[in-house]
Amino acid sequence: MDTLTYVYTHRQRFLDELSDFLRIPSISTQAAHKQDVRAAADWLRTHLSAAGFPYVEVMETPGHPIVYARWMAAGPDKPTVLIYGHYDVQPPDPLDEWRTPPFTPTLVGDDLFARGASDDKGQAFIHVKAAEAFKMTRGALPVNVKCIFEGEEEIGSPNLNPFIEAHQDLLAADIGLISDTHILGKDLPAIIYALRGLAYIEVTVIGPDHDVHSGLYGGAVNNPLNVLCRMIAQLQDAQGHVTIPGFYDSVRDLSPAERAELAKVPFDRAAWLKEAGVRSDWGEPAYTILERTTARPALDVNGIWGGYIEPGAKTVLPGRASAKISMRLVPDQEPQAITRLVEAYLQKIAPPTVQVEVKDLHGGEGAIVRRDSPAMQAAFRAYAATFGRDPIFIREGGSIPVVATFQKVLGIETILMGFGLPDDQLHAPNEKFHIPNFYKGIETVIRFMSGL
Amino acid sequence: MDTLTYVYTHRQRFLDELSDFLRIPSISTQAAHKQDVRAAADWLRTHLSAAGFPYVEVMETPGHPIVYARWMAAGPDKPTVLIYGHYDVQPPDPLDEWRTPPFTPTLVGDDLFARGASDDKGQAFIHVKAAEAFKMTRGALPVNVKCIFEGEEEIGSPNLNPFIEAHQDLLAADIGLISDTHILGKDLPAIIYALRGLAYIEVTVIGPDHDVHSGLYGGAVNNPLNVLCRMIAQLQDAQGHVTIPGFYDSVRDLSPAERAELAKVPFDRAAWLKEAGVRSDWGEPAYTILERTTARPALDVNGIWGGYIEPGAKTVLPGRASAKISMRLVPDQEPQAITRLVEAYLQKIAPPTVQVEVKDLHGGEGAIVRRDSPAMQAAFRAYAATFGRDPIFIREGGSIPVVATFQKVLGIETILMGFGLPDDQLHAPNEKFHIPNFYKGIETVIRFMSGL
Repeated sequence: MDTLTYVYTHRQRFLDELSDFLRIPSISTQAAHKQDVRAAADWLRTHLSAAGFPYVEVMETPGHPIVYARWMAAGPDKPTVLIYGHYDVQPPDPLDEWRTPPFTPTLVGDDLFARGASDDKGQAFIHVKAAEAFKMTRGALPVNVKCIFEGEEEIGSPNLNPFIEAHQDLLAADIGLISDTHILGKDLPAIIYALRGLAYIEVTVIGPDHDVHSGLYGGAVNNPLNVLCRMIAQLQDAQGHVTIPGFYDSVRDLSPAERAELAKVPFDRAAWLKEAGVRSDWGEPAYTILERTTARPALDVNGIWGGYIEPGAKTVLPGRASAKISMRLVPDQEPQAITRLVEAYLQKIAPPTVQVEVKDLHGGEGAIVRRDSPAMQAAFRAYAATFGRDPIFIREGGSIPVVATFQKVLGIETILMGFGLPDDQLHAPNEKFHIPNFYKGIETVIRFMSGL
Repeated sequence: MDTLTYVYTHRQRFLDELSDFLRIPSISTQAAHKQDVRAAADWLRTHLSAAGFPYVEVMETPGHPIVYARWMAAGPDKPTVLIYGHYDVQPPDPLDEWRTPPFTPTLVGDDLFARGASDDKGQAFIHVKAAEAFKMTRGALPVNVKCIFEGEEEIGSPNLNPFIEAHQDLLAADIGLISDTHILGKDLPAIIYALRGLAYIEVTVIGPDHDVHSGLYGGAVNNPLNVLCRMIAQLQDAQGHVTIPGFYDSVRDLSPAERAELAKVPFDRAAWLKEAGVRSDWGEPAYTILERTTARPALDVNGIWGGYIEPGAKTVLPGRASAKISMRLVPDQEPQAITRLVEAYLQKIAPPTVQVEVKDLHGGEGAIVRRDSPAMQAAFRAYAATFGRDPIFIREGGSIPVVATFQKVLGIETILMGFGLPDDQLHAPNEKFHIPNFYKGIETVIRFMSGL
């Protein structure tokens, strides 16, 4: 039987199996679900073995385990693909907003509703079923394949980078492959070729060594809350252009060709405003909304606190004030360098009446992948054949730090072969996966591997 | 016996009685102490009666009661003095920082340590003992006297203004008299002739109708936290000068004579810096620290919150951000007018990408009392005779809203006849009252009433 025909024939069973996977509440952030996370790892191991992977292991980490699988029978003259995915999920809260129970997968029309349906169990399982289809129809995969599925993606992957660094030989490969993103519409395939990076700091302004009374000292003691606001206001202009000297020095500008390519992306401004929950967009006037959110850096305050925040009025002039500030970065901005730049600037603009402390909370590099590589061309052809339409190359505003880790530690580029949709409600109530895309995903992966 | 000699003779008993008063933990903010608050009111009623007040009543309010007393035998051709004080106290927390138990009054040298010793039981009791001294030596007071002692000052006096408005006849008087402030040093008498007012608002900036992901939307959605900081930064310059148009229009400028008078106030900058807990002062360069904190308006953020404020990094672009902002006002700034001014300005500078809501939390008028009135001159002479040194006229940075209420509702000016010291540790552990000032307070009040 033809490999694609096999997929078509077994689609109902594949869906039933995915539903079983989704019934396991593998919520990585909640200690009460620790055994469920492990159960999901074990479930995945069983299905990887059943799909034909000769070597499968649930590998321990200081946190939740990583499921590793390997199928190297294609031989050394064939490329090795390293697949990454995650089997943990976000908490389902707020529960009362779900129309169907989050861990009782429910098909409504073509959409399967469940926590993790799209992010990322459904997309990760595509690769297991593609392997099974090869195994059952050809007895082998056309390329060598290694898989790592982690259980801590939703808590920031604290053990993933150390794992990759410690197991470089085990993970050695030629191409990375990740299905944890979305295309533009159910009939509108797209390939993400660039991700933004991240530099995330916490800044604390320290004034008086104890909270003082604003009646007695207001006007003669510099208030850390006022100072913090003033400093934050100096980080960017009213249009979002960052005003930290040197911030844009290493930004790789969009070429006219790339802008023309991005301009091809169908963009429904009204739908975007609705998704964002705003009445109007904002940002650097010289760039489109898509460019601003994917190809330009951004600076956002993610949290701020200080002083009296309970109901009513208290006339306190607090001793300190803090904010969490993150910067989305684009190639070739280096997170550590940007963090140092911002810290130096904050110290420079801080008035002498306060002290400023800056803590580096998190950094992740952006990524940009060559669109003309053989693997990217194979992905392009696979999407086009499956969807009947050429995929559009797009950038993505978020960060997938493992892409940079694969680049830096393993020296490989990654293909982001996503099959979600923009309205999949990731991290929100009523998460779903458009099931025709589940099947098309399996087909696309089969065509991609066959075409490498 | 001479009235002052009576005070001298009975000083030990006065101290013992004050200690009894201080043993009652009349903490108005804690429901568990509701009966203690009432016990303090009853204790005061008993002592007012014993001192000779022919009419004393514990009057109910929706909260803690108000103790009312009246002695009108001086006749209609004598002025009526309305004394205000409060018998409730702040909670003693943190308990482990007290060197002696807060409700076991302990004399160490000349200082009596206890919660409420200075604020305000000790100072309120001065008036009871002055009345007793008159009664026992002359059989009458030289003026008519009315008293109200409230039990809710430490929780913002929620029932005081309605009480005063509802009992204008009962409270009708010619002069207000309050002992709830401090002088400059134990041998350095001072009279506060001006208080700052207060306008206190809460501002909320509303952006997207739900929290969104800063990776996906950062750069094209105006972040309410960034907007709030930018708006706050536009309210004043780096030196604390408020930049809201019209803010200073109604400020009554300091006259050269008044500045010269304030310049006489002994000011120890090093001690001030230590008390404030800062390494340097700040504020409008054209004014001294004392002027900035008492005779100039100030704008302080008292609290701010929004977004993710737990440990670690979360890349949220929150739907809303809020701040509590208060302005200390000086005569003749009107709190309602200033609140309207600030609200209009905030709405004006808000970008069209957000909505701004402003809530008026609290307002209180400042006050300034004529220094050349007969009552003020009588107070001046009384301090000078008791302390052997002319009092200095000073302004105060905080607010005592009842002063404005007396002015507006009863049409009377108030003499702030305080006897506390700057280091009395009000609201803090180890509150104390310098007992020689307790006796001098009784003497000063006696001289003041005799001199009216």
